[in-house]
Amino acid sequence: MDEIRVIAVGGYNEMGRNMTVIMFDDEAVVFDMGLRLDRIQIHEDIEIEKMHSLDLIEMGAIPDDTKLGSIIDKVRAIVCTHGHLDHIGAIPKLAHRYDAPIVSTPYTLAVIRDLVKGERRFEVENKFLPLTAGEVYEISRNISVEFVNITHSIPESVIAVLHTPAGAVVYANDFKLDRTPTLDSPPDFKRLKELSKDGVAMLIVESTNSSRPGKTPSERVAKDLVHDVLLGTEETNSGVIVTTFSSHIARISSIIEASEKMGRIPVLLGRSMKKYVVTAKEMGIIDFPENIEVYSSSRAIANALRRISEEGRENYLLIVTGHQGEPDAVLTKIASKETDYRIQHGDKIIFSANKIPNPMTLANRYALETKLKMQGARIYEDVHVSGHASREDHWELLRLLKPQHVIPSHGELGMHIPYIEMAEETGYELGDTVHLMRNGDELILEI
Amino acid sequence: MDEIRVIAVGGYNEMGRNMTVIMFDDEAVVFDMGLRLDRIQIHEDIEIEKMHSLDLIEMGAIPDDTKLGSIIDKVRAIVCTHGHLDHIGAIPKLAHRYDAPIVSTPYTLAVIRDLVKGERRFEVENKFLPLTAGEVYEISRNISVEFVNITHSIPESVIAVLHTPAGAVVYANDFKLDRTPTLDSPPDFKRLKELSKDGVAMLIVESTNSSRPGKTPSERVAKDLVHDVLLGTEETNSGVIVTTFSSHIARISSIIEASEKMGRIPVLLGRSMKKYVVTAKEMGIIDFPENIEVYSSSRAIANALRRISEEGRENYLLIVTGHQGEPDAVLTKIASKETDYRIQHGDKIIFSANKIPNPMTLANRYALETKLKMQGARIYEDVHVSGHASREDHWELLRLLKPQHVIPSHGELGMHIPYIEMAEETGYELGDTVHLMRNGDELILEI
Amino acid sequence: MDEIRVIAVGGYNEMGRNMTVIMFDDEAVVFDMGLRLDRIQIHEDIEIEKMHSLDLIEMGAIPDDTKLGSIIDKVRAIVCTHGHLDHIGAIPKLAHRYDAPIVSTPYTLAVIRDLVKGERRFEVENKFLPLTAGEVYEISRNISVEFVNITHSIPESVIAVLHTPAGAVVYANDFKLDRTPTLDSPPDFKRLKELSKDGVAMLIVESTNSSRPGKTPSERVAKDLVHDVLLGTEETNSGVIVTTFSSHIARISSIIEASEKMGRIPVLLGRSMKKYVVTAKEMGIIDFPENIEVYSSSRAIANALRRISEEGRENYLLIVTGHQGEPDAVLTKIASKETDYRIQHGDKIIFSANKIPNPMTLANRYALETKLKMQGARIYEDVHVSGHASREDHWELLRLLKPQHVIPSHGELGMHIPYIEMAEETGYELGDTVHLMRNGDELILEI
Amino acid sequence: MDEIRVIAVGGYNEMGRNMTVIMFDDEAVVFDMGLRLDRIQIHEDIEIEKMHSLDLIEMGAIPDDTKLGSIIDKVRAIVCTHGHLDHIGAIPKLAHRYDAPIVSTPYTLAVIRDLVKGERRFEVENKFLPLTAGEVYEISRNISVEFVNITHSIPESVIAVLHTPAGAVVYANDFKLDRTPTLDSPPDFKRLKELSKDGVAMLIVESTNSSRPGKTPSERVAKDLVHDVLLGTEETNSGVIVTTFSSHIARISSIIEASEKMGRIPVLLGRSMKKYVVTAKEMGIIDFPENIEVYSSSRAIANALRRISEEGRENYLLIVTGHQGEPDAVLTKIASKETDYRIQHGDKIIFSANKIPNPMTLANRYALETKLKMQGARIYEDVHVSGHASREDHWELLRLLKPQHVIPSHGELGMHIPYIEMAEETGYELGDTVHLMRNGDELILEI
Repeated sequence: MDEIRVIAVGGYNEMGRNMTVIMFDDEAVVFDMGLRLDRIQIHEDIEIEKMHSLDLIEMGAIPDDTKLGSIIDKVRAIVCTHGHLDHIGAIPKLAHRYDAPIVSTPYTLAVIRDLVKGERRFEVENKFLPLTAGEVYEISRNISVEFVNITHSIPESVIAVLHTPAGAVVYANDFKLDRTPTLDSPPDFKRLKELSKDGVAMLIVESTNSSRPGKTPSERVAKDLVHDVLLGTEETNSGVIVTTFSSHIARISSIIEASEKMGRIPVLLGRSMKKYVVTAKEMGIIDFPENIEVYSSSRAIANALRRISEEGRENYLLIVTGHQGEPDAVLTKIASKETDYRIQHGDKIIFSANKIPNPMTLANRYALETKLKMQGARIYEDVHVSGHASREDHWELLRLLKPQHVIPSHGELGMHIPYIEMAEETGYELGDTVHLMRNGDELILEI
Repeated sequence: MDEIRVIAVGGYNEMGRNMTVIMFDDEAVVFDMGLRLDRIQIHEDIEIEKMHSLDLIEMGAIPDDTKLGSIIDKVRAIVCTHGHLDHIGAIPKLAHRYDAPIVSTPYTLAVIRDLVKGERRFEVENKFLPLTAGEVYEISRNISVEFVNITHSIPESVIAVLHTPAGAVVYANDFKLDRTPTLDSPPDFKRLKELSKDGVAMLIVESTNSSRPGKTPSERVAKDLVHDVLLGTEETNSGVIVTTFSSHIARISSIIEASEKMGRIPVLLGRSMKKYVVTAKEMGIIDFPENIEVYSSSRAIANALRRISEEGRENYLLIVTGHQGEPDAVLTKIASKETDYRIQHGDKIIFSANKIPNPMTLANRYALETKLKMQGARIYEDVHVSGHASREDHWELLRLLKPQHVIPSHGELGMHIPYIEMAEETGYELGDTVHLMRNGDELILEI
Repeated sequence: MDEIRVIAVGGYNEMGRNMTVIMFDDEAVVFDMGLRLDRIQIHEDIEIEKMHSLDLIEMGAIPDDTKLGSIIDKVRAIVCTHGHLDHIGAIPKLAHRYDAPIVSTPYTLAVIRDLVKGERRFEVENKFLPLTAGEVYEISRNISVEFVNITHSIPESVIAVLHTPAGAVVYANDFKLDRTPTLDSPPDFKRLKELSKDGVAMLIVESTNSSRPGKTPSERVAKDLVHDVLLGTEETNSGVIVTTFSSHIARISSIIEASEKMGRIPVLLGRSMKKYVVTAKEMGIIDFPENIEVYSSSRAIANALRRISEEGRENYLLIVTGHQGEPDAVLTKIASKETDYRIQHGDKIIFSANKIPNPMTLANRYALETKLKMQGARIYEDVHVSGHASREDHWELLRLLKPQHVIPSHGELGMHIPYIEMAEETGYELGDTVHLMRNGDELILEI
Repeated sequence: MDEIRVIAVGGYNEMGRNMTVIMFDDEAVVFDMGLRLDRIQIHEDIEIEKMHSLDLIEMGAIPDDTKLGSIIDKVRAIVCTHGHLDHIGAIPKLAHRYDAPIVSTPYTLAVIRDLVKGERRFEVENKFLPLTAGEVYEISRNISVEFVNITHSIPESVIAVLHTPAGAVVYANDFKLDRTPTLDSPPDFKRLKELSKDGVAMLIVESTNSSRPGKTPSERVAKDLVHDVLLGTEETNSGVIVTTFSSHIARISSIIEASEKMGRIPVLLGRSMKKYVVTAKEMGIIDFPENIEVYSSSRAIANALRRISEEGRENYLLIVTGHQGEPDAVLTKIASKETDYRIQHGDKIIFSANKIPNPMTLANRYALETKLKMQGARIYEDVHVSGHASREDHWELLRLLKPQHVIPSHGELGMHIPYIEMAEETGYELGDTVHLMRNGDELILEI
């Protein structure tokens, strides 16, 4: 009798530091190697690039793969479904111990490459293996990985499918079901239905927003909101600054488009803003208007801000880092009067991002917003829609795939619970076909 | 020296029961005569149609106009800006004591006429005087009322302007600034700017959502959300029921439109659903597709639901009353198994409305949703955007009109406060140019 | 090899309708048969006394014991740990099908007797078997039940212990750890430690308040709070009404005591107030001062309120039903002006109870408080401490008993989760030694 | 006609930086000169001791007294009602510009003296004038200041009364009405009633907790809670650390007392812990047991912690700074493993303090608690009662004093609002007898 083993390494007790191992016979595949940023934030003066993995494991910042023991030697591939840090951020610290290629979409690989370059402690020399949505990578005679196109909040996100003789394991972490995305293609429902028809043994799925009722709105709605705020005003001469996730290329594209309609020059400011966006540009994911300006180094940013301030802020739309009030981000520096661009009464600051509900982040945002408001800024918050599936999206995917077993991942117990309740509502039973796993747990499915 | 007197009759201590009197010289104009529904809800078995106004005043359900004394005789017009109950609901109880016409847009008048027809205690025989956005009604040699088109969540909403020799008083209660409405015209910014140029002595303005940061999204966003939910599913054979505000004609129009795209027959069910929508149809505000069905009486609704249930629910989209769990509404009856249309596992129920944050209403909604869920319904909540201006919309209107004085209305003290803070941020001073009024207070402006 | 079977019948998916079956060999014992009141509340005009058990099961109001099948015939005892409705309320509907005695402390039995008397549909003729804390009831050659004294919010609450050849099963549902109770004895820590030494196979334990940090304050604190509010005022001539749980005899005793210190005559008003308190008096649990007055029937209450109102409210302290705004309770009638005792400006109303966080209840409370405030009452809320263990109390009990296995009960999944996390922190493992059960689940422990 | 002028300098738009000027004729008195700490917290690396007052004013951290102009020369006394920073913290920055003595109770003066000693920018050479509750200081022929004993959360708190020929102005900021305090005397109700009889022209009163229903519990309740937590456990060998406000001498006294009952040596650790407590000891406010240990310098604390850790933590009760997670506090250092006292599994940490609801503080607390929990600590939060009056306490004081006018102070607009509503309920009218003031406003009362 065949069996599939699932080992919950990280991300089952918390948001962040995702890592799951799936074994069939004597072969294992790792899905994601992520970082938990808020475990870093509670310490002062940490230089993560120089830290040892064991210290980071003790801090709870990266997955504890030490318990895998000899399984590490059986890993044939490290598969990452998209380029967010909570899915790839531990690669620089852990991947070198695995004799396995890193399999991702090209954009994700580009982000990983950049990450690895910044590492100061370990050498990551794993092979990088690009795989596009719709393609299959034959890992061995027995097992293969397939990428299915899905929507999320970073380009080239996929659902990964591990095909084994005992059935398919679908790894959907993270995703949303957006039928009208603004930049990417809609989810590949056709392929998902085919998978369902062939039979899915197991679904491992993010539970992050499973407590939210209804359906996550399409990115088209975010675009409408952004345009509504930027274009919907009679006060067209004020300074305008937008901040959003640097990796949210679709959103940034909508902002740039609004900028054109406003007759303003879009200016991207910030190291990570450049990194993610220029990479997307080079890979043909996004088009740039001719007049766009991009500045990355501290000096270039300072110069640009001085010039814009002198030439007339009403001709520019600034797109900057700092949506969570990160201490070194561009918006934080502007708010702290560390640049020559001083906030003027009536300037508009648009946060095209949610507030990450973590006390450390909330404190940073509070300090940032307080400083901005004291200088007369008008704040627009949460001009944003989530990239994570809500309860009814989960309901859809679950009923679409009809897996024999389902495991919520990527969340605290409190996030898995609403997923389980939803699964129960469509016939799954806790402990029988829907499983609650904790970091370090192992589940063996005999098929 | 000329003076303008403002008397805060109702709606300054609470949401609901709006009523403001503005006097110039010896002439007075009433703005709104509203009802506070939650003061009715806390009592069981009340038949409001048969109650005396004095009892309703004691209950805090309608404005206390008894303190106006002889001013009542000086009222030359009762002006209502739109057809919501918190602005017109006290007309059947109070208007007959005023020797003055009711001045409203045609749709609002139609709603008032229906309301007056249902009254069992008093005879309302005031003249009905239709006035369209853009028009002016000359009340006397000295004063006149002008209607300026504005967006809200019911057709033909206006901002009313009282022109006096001492300056213009703008009454903006309620409104949003929606540049991309789906059914109505955008706000008449051109006229608002002209008013500003001529000088506005005072702005009386709703404060309801002034604590919400940013800008209220356009109705276009609500339309996108509705279509996203209705069309964005692979499970196209389930029953689908949408419930929304009967008077929100733009929303209902979007739902009907989605219905067409889904290949389903739209069916409007409920007494108030018929009242508001058919009136809008007759007045040319909304178009109906040929296949639409509308049922109003209990018997007709029961028959329709039986037939739909038998013929196949997958061919229909039901648009029903009951978004707040009102005990007699259609959705409530369906949930309580009082009709032959039984909820089936996987049926979708879409609430295209917010939850009114009042414990009585929340209890009704909870009972409704619990019953629906126990029968297997999938719930989509809050597929909706507000019809009330948010903080930055208020900022815009205030800076656009530049009134010498501003008075927040339509809210508890706790709602006026964020308005006042916003006004202070653009230079108004509490007690000097921005005024906090309580029901019964009088303010005299010497111009 | 011996085995213990646990069947989660009710109260594992929700608060209320507690029922657990524990089997050893061929003998079963039922722990609790409770009612879920909020499933009744969502329906209008239900007369529960006349309803059939199957309808109540479908409504989710009582435990679904239909799935027990032939196990029902093996039940040797129905054990109830205290007299709250969520633990005994289903007895009138279910117990008659069991050929087994009802085993409880004398006070609990008195409450059950009263409940059974009100039933209109079924005849409950089970034997009533009183058992006092510290005593053991030998059910059979193999198994016995022991009661261990514990603190809660009703007299004579116990932890029940099922002794089997395979080990002891401890059923601690509900409890708090109060070392300074005002009426009862402190928990029998000595016996709990002995049990621990002998070895506890399993602990079934309420999880209700396991999310609350720290320790639940002692009832002594509640007494201080009550006295602080009642005696701590310079306005000693106003009317004073206290409302609390009728079954919370310790609290009522503290209120009566305060009444004496205030020089006021304590007056108990309400049917359930009489039922619980007079029973406690007759059983010697509470002492009455000589001047106390108790009224139960509508007419007697009406007369008493008229007299008090005439004679001078400043001489009385009213202790009444209605702390959750129940429609027929005494306080609700006073607030609705249905009695001759009219609230006067400055009268004090003390809620010595929490607000039950259920929308139906919150609506009732809101209506009640709104009416009281409109008449000038001053409201003191939440002059109360909980009767349920908080997180650190759970930590203590778990480490004291050191059971091999632990199962959180009496709560939604969301309440079990913090219990599980706490258990993990002291070394238990989910799925291994701490178990998450759902209604209908069965767990077999091989010892 | 006589007039009293009130100038709201600080603390009317915010919590913190309290300062009010009251003038009669040509003489002025300043009440409080406070600091707003959270305006400091949003900046990194600020050394407040070295900063100029004008910079602190611009940051909103201290009252803006620059607008007082020549009134500064008319100030005859600076009166501080108690020793909290939000009432005295700006003295080192502002007092030197006033040719006036600082009038306070002896303990408050001792705290001010210590504060002034730490100042690095300005020289404060104002005369210190001790005044005890019950005493009167004759400022001039016309005006005098009286101190009336009141309860709060620091020793020797008073209500200050300014007697003028035009009537008495009562300044009650901050206070609670505690009839059973554990260390101090109860409020001097007798004197308050006399004042009322003589006539109070105006009451200026903190509004901080006026939104809280009911009555603030007595400090006796806090003592019970502390003892309940410390003594109510079967695990008597674990480490125990309590953290609380260093200036809350009554609380610290209760903790020390519990320590004695537990048979543990109380150890006070932290600079401010020593400062406030030893001062109180020296002034005879608190008694010390013989075995108490107090350490203030970093080195002494480090040594003590090492020794305690070696000798056996079960013999000590640590009372430390750090209840809000302040970066340099003792508890923060222990949590960050910067001392030799390492948290062990099961150690108890008791926060005998509320969480200050400010994002910066919440972030610090979160980081602190996360670190403690990761090391196995058990956390007891909010073992505490407030030192601020709740709504019904305010009701009592207002009706006791019967001032002609009342002004809520010490809070944001949102805090004043519930006070105003309460005042309206007992007959005051907004704008007429209850006044809403903003920083910088002036109110002239003609008597």
